[in-house]
Parts: sequence; structure tokens; C-alpha cells
Amino acid sequence: MSKVGIIMGSSSDLPIMQQAIAILQSFDIETEVDIVSAHRTSVIIAGAGGAAHLPGMVASMSPLPVIGVPIKSRNSIDGWDSVLSILQMPSGVPVATVALDGAENAGILAAQIIGSADKKVLDKIILYKEALKTKVYTASEELKNKKI
Amino acid sequence: MSKVGIIMGSSSDLPIMQQAIAILQSFDIETEVDIVSAHRTSVIIAGAGGAAHLPGMVASMSPLPVIGVPIKSRNSIDGWDSVLSILQMPSGVPVATVALDGAENAGILAAQIIGSADKKVLDKIILYKEALKTKVYTASEELKNKKI
Amino acid sequence: MSKVGIIMGSSSDLPIMQQAIAILQSFDIETEVDIVSAHRTSVIIAGAGGAAHLPGMVASMSPLPVIGVPIKSRNSIDGWDSVLSILQMPSGVPVATVALDGAENAGILAAQIIGSADKKVLDKIILYKEALKTKVYTASEELKNKKI
Amino acid sequence: MSKVGIIMGSSSDLPIMQQAIAILQSFDIETEVDIVSAHRTSVIIAGAGGAAHLPGMVASMSPLPVIGVPIKSRNSIDGWDSVLSILQMPSGVPVATVALDGAENAGILAAQIIGSADKKVLDKIILYKEALKTKVYTASEELKNKKI
Amino acid sequence: MSKVGIIMGSSSDLPIMQQAIAILQSFDIETEVDIVSAHRTSVIIAGAGGAAHLPGMVASMSPLPVIGVPIKSRNSIDGWDSVLSILQMPSGVPVATVALDGAENAGILAAQIIGSADKKVLDKIILYKEALKTKVYTASEELKNKKI
Amino acid sequence: MSKVGIIMGSSSDLPIMQQAIAILQSFDIETEVDIVSAHRTSVIIAGAGGAAHLPGMVASMSPLPVIGVPIKSRNSIDGWDSVLSILQMPSGVPVATVALDGAENAGILAAQIIGSADKKVLDKIILYKEALKTKVYTASEELKNKKI
Amino acid sequence: MSKVGIIMGSSSDLPIMQQAIAILQSFDIETEVDIVSAHRTSVIIAGAGGAAHLPGMVASMSPLPVIGVPIKSRNSIDGWDSVLSILQMPSGVPVATVALDGAENAGILAAQIIGSADKKVLDKIILYKEALKTKVYTASEELKNKKI
Amino acid sequence: MSKVGIIMGSSSDLPIMQQAIAILQSFDIETEVDIVSAHRTSVIIAGAGGAAHLPGMVASMSPLPVIGVPIKSRNSIDGWDSVLSILQMPSGVPVATVALDGAENAGILAAQIIGSADKKVLDKIILYKEALKTKVYTASEELKNKKI
Repeated sequence: MSKVGIIMGSSSDLPIMQQAIAILQSFDIETEVDIVSAHRTSVIIAGAGGAAHLPGMVASMSPLPVIGVPIKSRNSIDGWDSVLSILQMPSGVPVATVALDGAENAGILAAQIIGSADKKVLDKIILYKEALKTKVYTASEELKNKKI
Repeated sequence: MSKVGIIMGSSSDLPIMQQAIAILQSFDIETEVDIVSAHRTSVIIAGAGGAAHLPGMVASMSPLPVIGVPIKSRNSIDGWDSVLSILQMPSGVPVATVALDGAENAGILAAQIIGSADKKVLDKIILYKEALKTKVYTASEELKNKKI
Repeated sequence: MSKVGIIMGSSSDLPIMQQAIAILQSFDIETEVDIVSAHRTSVIIAGAGGAAHLPGMVASMSPLPVIGVPIKSRNSIDGWDSVLSILQMPSGVPVATVALDGAENAGILAAQIIGSADKKVLDKIILYKEALKTKVYTASEELKNKKI
Repeated sequence: MSKVGIIMGSSSDLPIMQQAIAILQSFDIETEVDIVSAHRTSVIIAGAGGAAHLPGMVASMSPLPVIGVPIKSRNSIDGWDSVLSILQMPSGVPVATVALDGAENAGILAAQIIGSADKKVLDKIILYKEALKTKVYTASEELKNKKI
Repeated sequence: MSKVGIIMGSSSDLPIMQQAIAILQSFDIETEVDIVSAHRTSVIIAGAGGAAHLPGMVASMSPLPVIGVPIKSRNSIDGWDSVLSILQMPSGVPVATVALDGAENAGILAAQIIGSADKKVLDKIILYKEALKTKVYTASEELKNKKI
Repeated sequence: MSKVGIIMGSSSDLPIMQQAIAILQSFDIETEVDIVSAHRTSVIIAGAGGAAHLPGMVASMSPLPVIGVPIKSRNSIDGWDSVLSILQMPSGVPVATVALDGAENAGILAAQIIGSADKKVLDKIILYKEALKTKVYTASEELKNKKI
Repeated sequence: MSKVGIIMGSSSDLPIMQQAIAILQSFDIETEVDIVSAHRTSVIIAGAGGAAHLPGMVASMSPLPVIGVPIKSRNSIDGWDSVLSILQMPSGVPVATVALDGAENAGILAAQIIGSADKKVLDKIILYKEALKTKVYTASEELKNKKI
Repeated sequence: MSKVGIIMGSSSDLPIMQQAIAILQSFDIETEVDIVSAHRTSVIIAGAGGAAHLPGMVASMSPLPVIGVPIKSRNSIDGWDSVLSILQMPSGVPVATVALDGAENAGILAAQIIGSADKKVLDKIILYKEALKTKVYTASEELKNKKI
């Protein structure tokens, strides 16, 4: 029952939202790109651009945690419309908002939510975080050895 | 093991952050207002104002889901500094950001995260959401009957 | 069948939205403050603050013209969240947005929409516009005669 | 008498404004791209960029509903100037503002205004809205069947 | 023929605009608070708030230099609407914009424009600028002697 | 003595500032692109980008009217830095600010300032304004005759 | 020779700038509130509001490090004008900008600059930083023991 | 002991940060692109984009002056996130912030800090500033002689 439901406001949001799917697959977490069906998933990721109502609307209908991905779509005012219409939800209906076009982080957050109760997933996240640190140290070493 | 760790950048953030504690208590979820100790909690809520680094710093050190509450502190530039420095985290280190001063929503989100794996908490959230709807209908009825 | 349906995101929006009701009453246009029932009204006015999804949600469900009133609610980021989440609707689902807290203008716009097909209402609007001009000229005369 | 008057601040706005004409033609509603002559139309659409005074100026002179289209012209400050100078009209002179470059939505809104009193046009809008829903379901089905 | 015409969008703008009148009177320059009549003045000052069309509208009709004063009126979005709708005029129709609520500076600018061709006024401005410098030096001396 | 002094913060601002020179030449007004020498000109135009101090600095040193042109330079934050650091001058030191990159309008404004005391220049501006109107009518006619 | 020169755009900035003086006095660093005389100080702190040119102007004339304090003065547009006109200096002329109204931090930064070459001052800063940490731990302990 | 430590949030920030290294090399000041080791440097330059925590984090751990360079990285909201999360540091933890992508200015500022106690470096900065002025005068002369 650890599937993550992934929905989006428009099929033009797919290139961004695929980053969420990819990172979740790397954690061996099943995803469901579908019209959301809350009883079969543990977490929902919803991406949308412009006046982005989808994440908030899903959050008002489901008891599950909803992660919102603001997308800088065409005709958006630099992404501000999308960020503010997902983030500034009223009391009682939270949306866990990530950075503009931050679908990869939405995937990691979904994994962390599942990992908060599932030791196997948590261990994968611990490994992922360690790999991230190693990557930083390697980049740092490369920087030091580089002739700048 | 369902405690929620609650941390804040400054004790002046307490009036806002208490809304998270209050709503979690209403769900019978234990909270821990402390220097965070990730192995004893399932979720972390971190609130901060201005150039708000606390939520992101915690997120970079813990494998648990971290919820960030931007706080409109004194000297903040209308809250924009706090919102952007919590929301716009780099790839690999998500913070689940809620609305400006949205500590109550942070509490609900933490409960939803716990509820995604704990049926008893999920049932309380379902009840909470139903009460919310009832409140809306009641307000609507009152509005109709009001002599405007 | 010229009723205007008036809905709002929260009963705390009522003080602003009453300005729409008042101006419509001055045009002898019936209003209905209710959970919207599209088949009984000609136009819908929807006001909301923060991540303001109500106007867009109604617009996506009704074939009638929907007028959106962004409201500068408590915890709003200076009204920007409300303005952008009502204005920046996707193609196919327009919301006729008026100024921040501009419920009176929403009422006038609703009357103009009804007036575009109803001569009696149009005549009242023409009178209203003329009174507006007179008011400007009177204020101008007063300014000239004032000892500044 | 159901013509829609379409005016614009500069001929460089035509590529955006043509989207309004196209969608109105698809509803079989006559348009008039002209220096506006209010007595021959039911609704006016006015598009302009920068410090965009045209929609407000027309609204102050006509009793008809005026729809404003903010246009992100060259030298605009990311469209904010155009959005704010159309949206934030004073009390008594509403402009029904749509999204930045949202001329297609302006056309749909004009059709909805006419449709609020003209059953034939209303039926076309109902069909349009249904087609929109079908398109969403089809896109959703395609998404589910796609190998992502 | 050196009168300065002063106009405003609403009588509620008078408290701000009086600062322009006061500074012009201190330069012995006649002012005319009136519906503008361009042939009797040399410069026009126009103040307005919100979607502030008055300065631009006057500029499009008069060959005289027009100074625009953005006013932070009630319901303005922090003054941004007023600033942008006065400043961002299209090519061919400049408005000499001063700071938000900067009516005193508008008066000085009008005096400088008259002074650019009228030696008596120019001399008064030179004296004013010298007094300004003296004031800065005096304030600086006071600061140094203050026990901080 | 009707020369207009034109100065700029950097030679990279020249492509924008040349629009001021061109329009002034079309009015037969001499310009002086130089380190400003106030006693030989009637008006000063100063263009600058980023934290744009040049226009304000010149305004604090000269009794002449100073026109400021905000320039959207490389590394500018979308032009906001330039606009605000030219527009928001303190009391006593006005800068007549025009639109972002609005050097042509700065030229016209300089001509209008000279024209406010020089009938020959005023007549040229009246002709220019009439040509502008003709251009609008012609564009409007073309639009009407166009098959859209 | 370790004096810090402190200058400000207006005596109304003194209440904010006194925080810089106070913190420097606590580090036993002499300050000089004066028209700046670069040869007698090691560092300059300059505070200003609105279109804030003072810090940049000083930076262009002195080879010393200049710290800029943006001040949210009356009529400022929420402090943005001040922040951007101090921060966005052109290449070659840096201003070390601190937070809006951040005069205390400007004082600490000045002390750190002096401390980077003066062991006695550095030791005081190390003590200050340790006291800051202790204060955080104490506040944290108090939070834990509080009955929330 | 006059080395400047240069750190960055990601190796993708290197192209911008190299401007700091280059200018410091032109002042014969050694740099260290490394994981920062405060005891071996006099000043630290830290560059980062998005929710940019690196400069503030370093500032909270080191008694040395920290210069922050906001970087307009990919997915940044026009650089605002980076600027605000570096600039708006809380009391006690200043970061000397320079302009967006202003790494060259960060290098000059670091040199000025070293120069405030090291006469040899100060002399180089005085020469640099003089060369800057000469460059301005040369550009000005070229402008005057140019046929525009």
C-alpha cells in the first residue's frame, strides 16, 4: 500500500513531473500516474502551473498528505502565480509545497513520508542522503585539485 | 514512535508555532519542542523567519520528512524572505513548505504523514475533515438566513 | 431570471462582499448569497482570499460568467496570493477578476452583464455612470472654490 | 445585436488578441475589430500592454461590460505593469480582467456574458465546457497508458 | 504664463497633492487646482492612485510636460499599481514620474522646469538647493555634538 | 541655450540612450553627450542601470530639471533595481523618471520642457502629437480592413 | 586606527543606526558619527532609505570597505527601493549590504573586519559568538521546560 | 595569513565565483577554493543560489567576516530567493551581501577588508580605484568624440 499517486494539471506538465516518478522508481516505490484514487495510495503528488488549483483541491478532498509542485508554465508570471496559489492554502487544508519546478524534491519528500513508517524505505533514503554528501565532498575535492 | 519534533529559529516564533502543537494535541499526537532528535520522532516541523535556514539545515541532516513554516518576523520584508528561503531548496533536500505563519497547517500535515501509515490517526483526520465541511455548510446556512 | 449568485470562501469575507450586494440592490437586482445554484442565476460573483480557489473552481463547473473578487485576508502576502490565484486561470476557464477587495466593482460588473441584454438595467447603469461624472465635476468645483 | 467589440492599444497586440477573435468565431459570435462603438456591441474586449490605460478608459466611457486583457509587451516589467494598471480600477469603473496574454479566455468570457441571456450561445458554451472535460479525461487516459 | 496646473484623480488625494501646492507657493509660482486647461499653464502635475490613468491620459492630450505623482491610496497593492501605471507609459507619451506620494518633489520639479527658462525662478531654486545643503551640514554638526 | 545634456552610467547604456538623441534631433534640439556642464544646457537626461545613482547624484548637484532613464542592464534584477533607485528620490531632489529603457520618452519630455517656454519647439511637439494620433487612426483603419 | 566611521542619509535614520554604535561600543571599538573622513577610520558604515545613494557614493570615493544598511524609511515601497539601490552596485564598487534595518549586524560586521587583523577584537567576537550560542541553548532549555 | 577562502554551494556556481578569484589574483591575494578552514584565512567568500543557506551557515560558525554572493541559478525565481536568503540574516550573524552574480565585487570587497589593515593591499586598491576613474573618463571622452 505504499504507492504514490501522481497527478498534474495538464499533460504539458509531464516533463517536470517525470522527475518525481524517476526518483521514486530509484527508491523502488511504485507510482500511479492517474486520476487520483486516495484509498490505493499513501501520498499524493500534484503539480500545476498558473493559478494552480489542483493540489489544493485534492488536499480538500483527501485525508492523505498532498505534495504540491508549482510549475513555471507558459504565460505564468515568472512562476509567482503558481507558487502562491499552491503555498498559501487556508487553515485546515495544508499542501506540502516544494520549490518551483521541484518535482524531484516532491518525489524524495514522498519517499521520506513513506520512510517515516517503513524501515526499508527509510534505509534507502539514508543511503541516498549519504550519496548526496559524498557527491558534495567529491565535487569539493575536484574543485581543490582544479587549476583555476 | 509517532512523536512530532517541533523546532523554531527563535523563541519569538513560539506564538505562531504553538498552533502546530495545539492541533497535534487535538489529534492525540505527542509533540516534542526540543533540539531535534530525529531517532525519536517521525516527522519534524521547523519554523523560522527572515533568511530562514533552520528548516533546510534540518532537512539536510535528517532522513525524516521536514515541514517548514515561514514566519513573518519583525524586520522581514513582508514575509517574502522567509517564504523563499524555506521553499526554494535545492534538489535532494526537500522541505514541505506551508503558508506564511501556517503553523496550524504544519500540524495537520504532520498528522496526515503519520496517518498515512497509522489507521487510528487517519480516522481522526477523516473526522477532522468532515467537521471542517460541516463548519462550511453551517456558515453557509447562517449566511443564507442572515438579513443582509 | 436576473439574480446574481454571490458566494465567498469564508464568512470572514462577508464585510467585503456586502459591497457587491449593496450596489446590486441599488440597481434593483436580486442577489442570492448561497451555495451557488447556477440554473437560477445569470451571473456568479465569488470572493476569496489567500490561495483563492473558489472563483476558479466555480468557473470550471458553470457555463455562466464568473466574477472573482480577490480579498486581502489575514495571513495573505499583501494580497498577491489572492490576486494571482484568481486572475491567472488556464485557457478555457476565465474568471472576470476585479481589483483587490473590489466587491463593489464586482457588483457593478454583474449589473453591466445583465444590462448588456436588459434595457431597464442598462438604463440604470447609464444613470449611475452619469451620477459618477456629476460627482467628479462637483468634487472638482469644490476643489477650485476651496481656499488651499 | 450580439457583436463583441475588440480593441487594442497597438497593432503589435494583434497576435495575442486574435485568440479572442478565433474563439468567438468558433461560437458563431460576430466580432468587430474597430474603434469601439458601444451602441452596436454587447460586450467590449480591450487589450493593452505596459501602463495599459485603454481598458479602463473605455470602461469609464461605456455602460457595457469591458473585458481587459493585460499583454506582456516589449519593455514591460515582466507584465506586472500591464496586469496592475488594468486590474486595479477605482470604485465605479470595473474592468473584467483576465490572465496575462489571456485573450482566448477574454473571448470565452465575452461569449459567457452573451450566453447569460441568449440560450443558443449558452448551449454552445455548455458543449465547449463538456469538450474541455473530455479533453482532460482523454489526456488522463493517455497518461495512464503511457509507458513513463 | 508660469502657472502650474494641478489635477488629481480623487479629492481623497488632496492631502498628498497639497505638498506640491505648498512648495510651489514658496517659490512664488501660481498654481491652479482645476480641471486642467493646458493653454493657461506651463506645466501640469497630475496625481492618482491604484490603476492611475489620469497622468497618462493628460499626457496623451497635452503638448506640455506632465509630472505624475503615484499615490498610495486605500486598496492599492502597496503602491505598486499606482507606480507602474504612471511610469510605464508607451513611446510618444512620457509622464515625468516622481516617487510614491512624492507631491513635494513634483512641485520642485515643476519649478525647475519653469526655472529652466526663467532666471528669477532658477535663482530661487539655487537658493532652495543651498538651504537644503546647509540643512544637511547643520544636521551633521548636531549629530557630531550629540552624546550618542 | 536650449541644449539637452545627455549622460549615462556606462558606455554599454549608449544603445538605449541614443533613442533620446535621435528624437531630440528630430525636434532640431541640440544635444551634448558629455560629462554634464549644467550652465550650458537647459535640461539633463541621465540614464543608468542596476543601483542607478547617476540621475539622483546629478539632481542633487544641479538646479536644472533632471530626467532619469532606468536601464535594464545585464545582472539587473529584471530592471526593478534601476527603476526604484531612480524613482524613489528623497524630498528636495526630484528626478523626472520615465519607463524602463524609455530613452525616447526622455527625449520627448526634454523637448516638452524646452517647449514650455519656446513656442517654436512647442509647435513641433504639437505636430509630433498630431502625427502620433494619425498613426493610431491609420493603424486602426488597417486593422478594420484586414481580413482577420 | 580602528575607528568605524558611521554616516547616514538623514537624521531620521539615527534610531536604526544607533544599534551599530551600541554593538561596536560593546566591542570597545571607537566610532565616529561624522561626515566621513576615510583616512581616520578602517571601515565605514553608511545607512540610508528610499533611493539610497549614500553607501554607493561613499564606496565610489573611498578605498575602505563600506557596509550599507538599507533603512525602511517613511514613503519607502516596503524597503525594496532601499535594499536594491544599496545592494545592486556595479562592478568595481562593492557595498557590503546587510539586512533591512540591520544596523546591529553592520556593527558586528565592522568588528569582524577589524578583528580579521586585530587579535584582541577577534577574541571579543569569538566570545560574542559563544554567548550567542549559549543564549540559543538557554532559550531551547526554557522552551523544553515550559508547559506549552 | 591574508588568504581568502572561497566556497560555493554547487560546482555549477564556479563560472560566477571565478570572477572573485580572478580579481583577487590581480591584487596578489592568495585564494583557497576549499571546504572552508577559518583559521587559515582572513575573509570568507561564499556563493550560492536558490534558498542559499551556505553563506549564512558559514557566518554562524566563523568569527571571520563572510561575504555572500547570491547566484541566479537554474530554477531560481529570478534571483529573488537567493538575494533574500543571503541578505536577510538575523541579528548576530551578518553576511556582507553583494549584488546578484556579483562575485567580482565580492573579490574587491575581500581585498578592501584585507587592505583595511595591510598598507600594501590598500595601495593596490587605491590604484585600482584610480584606474576605474580613468576608465570612466576615457569612456566619456570617447563618447564625446564619437559621431552619434
